Amino acid sequence: MADVPVTSEMSLLTRLEFTSDNITGASPEILAALARANEGAVASYGSDPHTAALERLAEAIFERPVAILPVATGTAANALALSALARPFQGIYCHAVAHAMTDECGAPEFYTAGAKLLGLPSRDGRLRPAQLAEAVQWARSNGVHHVQPAAVTVSQATEWGTIYTPEALAALAAQVHELGLKVHMDGARFANAVARLGCTPAEASWRAGVDILSLGATKNGALAAEAIVVFDSTLGAELGFRRKRGGHLWSKMRFLSVQLSAYLTDDLWLRNARHSNAMADRLAVGLAAIPGARLVQPVEANELFVVLPDPVTARLREHGFRFYDWPSPEGEAAAVVRLVTSYDMRASDVDGFVAVAAAA
Amino acid sequence: MADVPVTSEMSLLTRLEFTSDNITGASPEILAALARANEGAVASYGSDPHTAALERLAEAIFERPVAILPVATGTAANALALSALARPFQGIYCHAVAHAMTDECGAPEFYTAGAKLLGLPSRDGRLRPAQLAEAVQWARSNGVHHVQPAAVTVSQATEWGTIYTPEALAALAAQVHELGLKVHMDGARFANAVARLGCTPAEASWRAGVDILSLGATKNGALAAEAIVVFDSTLGAELGFRRKRGGHLWSKMRFLSVQLSAYLTDDLWLRNARHSNAMADRLAVGLAAIPGARLVQPVEANELFVVLPDPVTARLREHGFRFYDWPSPEGEAAAVVRLVTSYDMRASDVDGFVAVAAAA
Amino acid sequence: MADVPVTSEMSLLTRLEFTSDNITGASPEILAALARANEGAVASYGSDPHTAALERLAEAIFERPVAILPVATGTAANALALSALARPFQGIYCHAVAHAMTDECGAPEFYTAGAKLLGLPSRDGRLRPAQLAEAVQWARSNGVHHVQPAAVTVSQATEWGTIYTPEALAALAAQVHELGLKVHMDGARFANAVARLGCTPAEASWRAGVDILSLGATKNGALAAEAIVVFDSTLGAELGFRRKRGGHLWSKMRFLSVQLSAYLTDDLWLRNARHSNAMADRLAVGLAAIPGARLVQPVEANELFVVLPDPVTARLREHGFRFYDWPSPEGEAAAVVRLVTSYDMRASDVDGFVAVAAAA
Amino acid sequence: MADVPVTSEMSLLTRLEFTSDNITGASPEILAALARANEGAVASYGSDPHTAALERLAEAIFERPVAILPVATGTAANALALSALARPFQGIYCHAVAHAMTDECGAPEFYTAGAKLLGLPSRDGRLRPAQLAEAVQWARSNGVHHVQPAAVTVSQATEWGTIYTPEALAALAAQVHELGLKVHMDGARFANAVARLGCTPAEASWRAGVDILSLGATKNGALAAEAIVVFDSTLGAELGFRRKRGGHLWSKMRFLSVQLSAYLTDDLWLRNARHSNAMADRLAVGLAAIPGARLVQPVEANELFVVLPDPVTARLREHGFRFYDWPSPEGEAAAVVRLVTSYDMRASDVDGFVAVAAAA
Repeated sequence: MADVPVTSEMSLLTRLEFTSDNITGASPEILAALARANEGAVASYGSDPHTAALERLAEAIFERPVAILPVATGTAANALALSALARPFQGIYCHAVAHAMTDECGAPEFYTAGAKLLGLPSRDGRLRPAQLAEAVQWARSNGVHHVQPAAVTVSQATEWGTIYTPEALAALAAQVHELGLKVHMDGARFANAVARLGCTPAEASWRAGVDILSLGATKNGALAAEAIVVFDSTLGAELGFRRKRGGHLWSKMRFLSVQLSAYLTDDLWLRNARHSNAMADRLAVGLAAIPGARLVQPVEANELFVVLPDPVTARLREHGFRFYDWPSPEGEAAAVVRLVTSYDMRASDVDGFVAVAAAA
Repeated sequence: MADVPVTSEMSLLTRLEFTSDNITGASPEILAALARANEGAVASYGSDPHTAALERLAEAIFERPVAILPVATGTAANALALSALARPFQGIYCHAVAHAMTDECGAPEFYTAGAKLLGLPSRDGRLRPAQLAEAVQWARSNGVHHVQPAAVTVSQATEWGTIYTPEALAALAAQVHELGLKVHMDGARFANAVARLGCTPAEASWRAGVDILSLGATKNGALAAEAIVVFDSTLGAELGFRRKRGGHLWSKMRFLSVQLSAYLTDDLWLRNARHSNAMADRLAVGLAAIPGARLVQPVEANELFVVLPDPVTARLREHGFRFYDWPSPEGEAAAVVRLVTSYDMRASDVDGFVAVAAAA
Repeated sequence: MADVPVTSEMSLLTRLEFTSDNITGASPEILAALARANEGAVASYGSDPHTAALERLAEAIFERPVAILPVATGTAANALALSALARPFQGIYCHAVAHAMTDECGAPEFYTAGAKLLGLPSRDGRLRPAQLAEAVQWARSNGVHHVQPAAVTVSQATEWGTIYTPEALAALAAQVHELGLKVHMDGARFANAVARLGCTPAEASWRAGVDILSLGATKNGALAAEAIVVFDSTLGAELGFRRKRGGHLWSKMRFLSVQLSAYLTDDLWLRNARHSNAMADRLAVGLAAIPGARLVQPVEANELFVVLPDPVTARLREHGFRFYDWPSPEGEAAAVVRLVTSYDMRASDVDGFVAVAAAA
Repeated sequence: MADVPVTSEMSLLTRLEFTSDNITGASPEILAALARANEGAVASYGSDPHTAALERLAEAIFERPVAILPVATGTAANALALSALARPFQGIYCHAVAHAMTDECGAPEFYTAGAKLLGLPSRDGRLRPAQLAEAVQWARSNGVHHVQPAAVTVSQATEWGTIYTPEALAALAAQVHELGLKVHMDGARFANAVARLGCTPAEASWRAGVDILSLGATKNGALAAEAIVVFDSTLGAELGFRRKRGGHLWSKMRFLSVQLSAYLTDDLWLRNARHSNAMADRLAVGLAAIPGARLVQPVEANELFVVLPDPVTARLREHGFRFYDWPSPEGEAAAVVRLVTSYDMRASDVDGFVAVAAAA
């Protein structure tokens, strides 16, 4: 491998990791907020001024009254949010490969006490109004024998790296509401979507019909912080009990709240996301020049799903680059890998990856 | 209140808060550890070197192989630990006013999928071997009609601020094991107990028969960190899945692990606990001089349960001191208040409290 | 035992069994109803004419619209009913020794997904308005840390063989409703209570404030049939799904429905209960003449709780009589036994028991 | 419709119902057994001689020691059995349209406390060893993020009316066991399969590797009786508690046990099933002569899945015949109906159906 000049550029671990955006550390602004909050005694369990400030900030960001419940993980945010939407004997529609379906070890089933996730297929990760209408009609025709649907969860960005436009989301949510169901959004990468769309947080959520949002921060710069943002005011009180019961109510809540406040202050969340998206675009452009490389999904956030020639994949791994093989989407015969960029990735990291790939 | 000279001494909030030890911030050592860990990309979900280091440290501290699972709250640690000990159709004995019974919003029932907490009374918060033997015998005589006991959870320190000596604990655990049940210890204040006993962590846990321990750190200096320490090696794998499913597996696990490593390094945990205990002793000595004041439990950790004359209570609250009224223990007719000291409380804070009380 | 002339009278097993009323078979009227219903194909899962007829009959009996859901066991009826009243993160008050608390192997926790049964003590098995008010107030003062109460379940007759008068029940239910909670009645022996009170079924249930009733039939003449009778019309649809999900929706529902219809027709249920009550009275009168025998609860239904001299107990068991030792009620030092009479017990059975007891 | 001479033959409701086999009543032998068992007092909750006799009979039928737990519904039998095989954080493979997946309102999720049913596709309703191996490998590669599989449930007969031969079943079970999972069989129509195969019950179950069996009786002649037959001796005790907790332990258990004993005596179960199968064959032969009619699955038990010309379907329904439209199997474009024969259907009923269909 002496013929690979880029090797000398890759001394830091970050440059080799394209597995996920959760291998990053925290933004300096967020660590600084923790240090600032570490002064004196304050009331525990969220009755502190830091948490009150977060609530005001969230209402400013979303341009309306909300309840906001900070938790430490996205799985907790999703599962808690869904537990407020579906009773144990009901069902929740999601994409067939939604994170909630395949990557949370049954957390939604746990928090809902056994509600059933009902997977719906699509090539690009987005759900369509018509398929929901059809699914609900079928479920209802089965009466007490089948779980009756109560909610739909959509991911923004989706598991295939695509995003819902406000228009597409509004059309979906209108159908869902017409069917009498509620809309949850798994916004683990909500910042990436908003940054890409150039819309307001409100336009990407409640104005388009989202009833409850899992707002991600961990992947995009926090240590460990996500928030359940509740637009349906009837759900907040219930979630307070559920959060405690799930062991997700921090006694020193200020240390969760200030992470989120710092994240939402001075557009840190959008700045981080824009950078991460830009790195994904740069990576896509770089790979486009490699013979045999091919995107299987459009790049709309910070994830790429790519067909790479076997020698390219092998060469990258020989150089220490890490990324996951990924199940192919419907209708795609070739093997696929997933590449994820992050808020702290440098252009040189991306270029290093492309250079090794091109050299193969 | 011009006649109360101590008022000028009480400018900081900490001096007025005796409600709980969870109103504190974090030890500087722990914040520093977070900052140090914030370098570069590391593997997520606990496959990082910081977590591996914690595992080695825990084994050194406990003088044996252990599995250690960091989580952010004590409720999560307790409920997860219990879920590994009792199946849904079984029962768990605890003290009638155990935290798990009265203060976790049903988290044990949630995580065990409905196992039943069976409360046993005692004046001082400690359970006795004989009462467990009798309770188990009765349950077994009821066959399938009654939940069958699978575990006992003891609190160290107890909810009444008392502690189990290694000998008392060993006698209890021997009886529990003879009955075929497992022993969980809610060690939210394990450090306070070990500091008071002057024994080793091993002597206060597995050598005395504890099968699984919730090791507290949050109340005693961490931001948000507790650990499930598993001495029964068969339980670790199951708990890994349960932790994920409960939404308690941090993607950036390093930020939990380094809190715990810092806590257990250079005796920080014991230094903090010794101070907190000493403040409790100082407070007890001070109150002993006040006519009509009377402890209703011995002070063995950092909590005091006290009968105070009404004018004293009223005067303290007029001065802004905060503390909880508490249900009286069995056999105690007078009203009781709880006072909690903390790792960062100053002697002058205690003295200020005593001075106001004495002035009344 | 040659000196015990009654022995020759005790050739049949029924005469020796005073353990419970569930050792009986079924009333001939109920077996006949099964045979009559066994004609032709009918729609399954409750869409049959037999079930429709039961619904009309139940409305006539209770003098108002109701939803009625037949199930095969009392445990199912109670647990399903409670699951419609309390969410998983809530609590349910019951007597400290209620059947739901001690004899259903955690079925309420299972069906509610972990709601907490909160036991309240009383000497006679009845709950009082004041103790509920106090308990609710305490729970509410604990905020998210304690499960919040949603319902109260009372037993009619109680586990101590006593009954609520319509007036006592109305006072209790008024307090419960004022607190914002719902009232469930475990009516495993509802027939015995109504027969004793001489009131209407309506007066003993919804007119006194019961929101949902488990109406027992099995102990009082059915093979296996109980009914959830829903007075709160909002709960019926939910229970239909919960019943199916619990595996309690019979495909050949007619065979449950006709048991209940036969039970409620021509006062069979009240005739059976009156007889059973009368046997309990006869037994009480007989035992009153035995030196050292003493009732520890008034006889208000078909159960007796009795202190018997040891030689009497021993002699009865030598003769093959079967009955249970029972935990003593509060404030009772002596050992207690429970004696249960049944709808098919003969006066000579009771007299045989008394004769053997008297001879000792 | 004056031109339809068969109308005069269709005076009884049975002749028009082809929706399911659960619209039938009970075999006379089973009603007679109930009447015989209704004598005297016997011990409750299964400690009676009738239940002991059933246990001996089941061991004779299956040629080995078993635990047998009678319950009233197939949903209860399936869900309870699965709850003993999979922990809440695990998964269970089944066919994508298995009854447990689509027709039990989430009962398996309820009884397992949220274990995940993982559907696998196949054209004919049978699972293959290779697809299980692949699915397990994928799940395991996902570590704690995905529920880990613990069991496979197969239906005999399958939801597509097909059956597993002992050889096919043994090959599947061998693969499942090699993967470390357990095998449950939903034998709602086990009798139909055994009758068709002409093998022994042992050969169709444990000798082929089944660990636990839901043995159906209700559809094939009982009022309401199914049995969980446990071949893995470690599971019986646990199931006893789970059955009670689910509200499925009858106090007057004799009335469940004698249904099953009568069912298994003198080959009643096989005689009934043979007849039902024969009626299905007769119906298939009759429909084969109708232009445009076509089976989409082989007839191996008592269900037919048929493509019928629209005028035929319309005509049949005009005459009052009832049967369900059914989702088409993979690869089938035409609309499908399901026809179910039953143990008490007469040849003339079948012929009447065929005659009307032919006349259209």
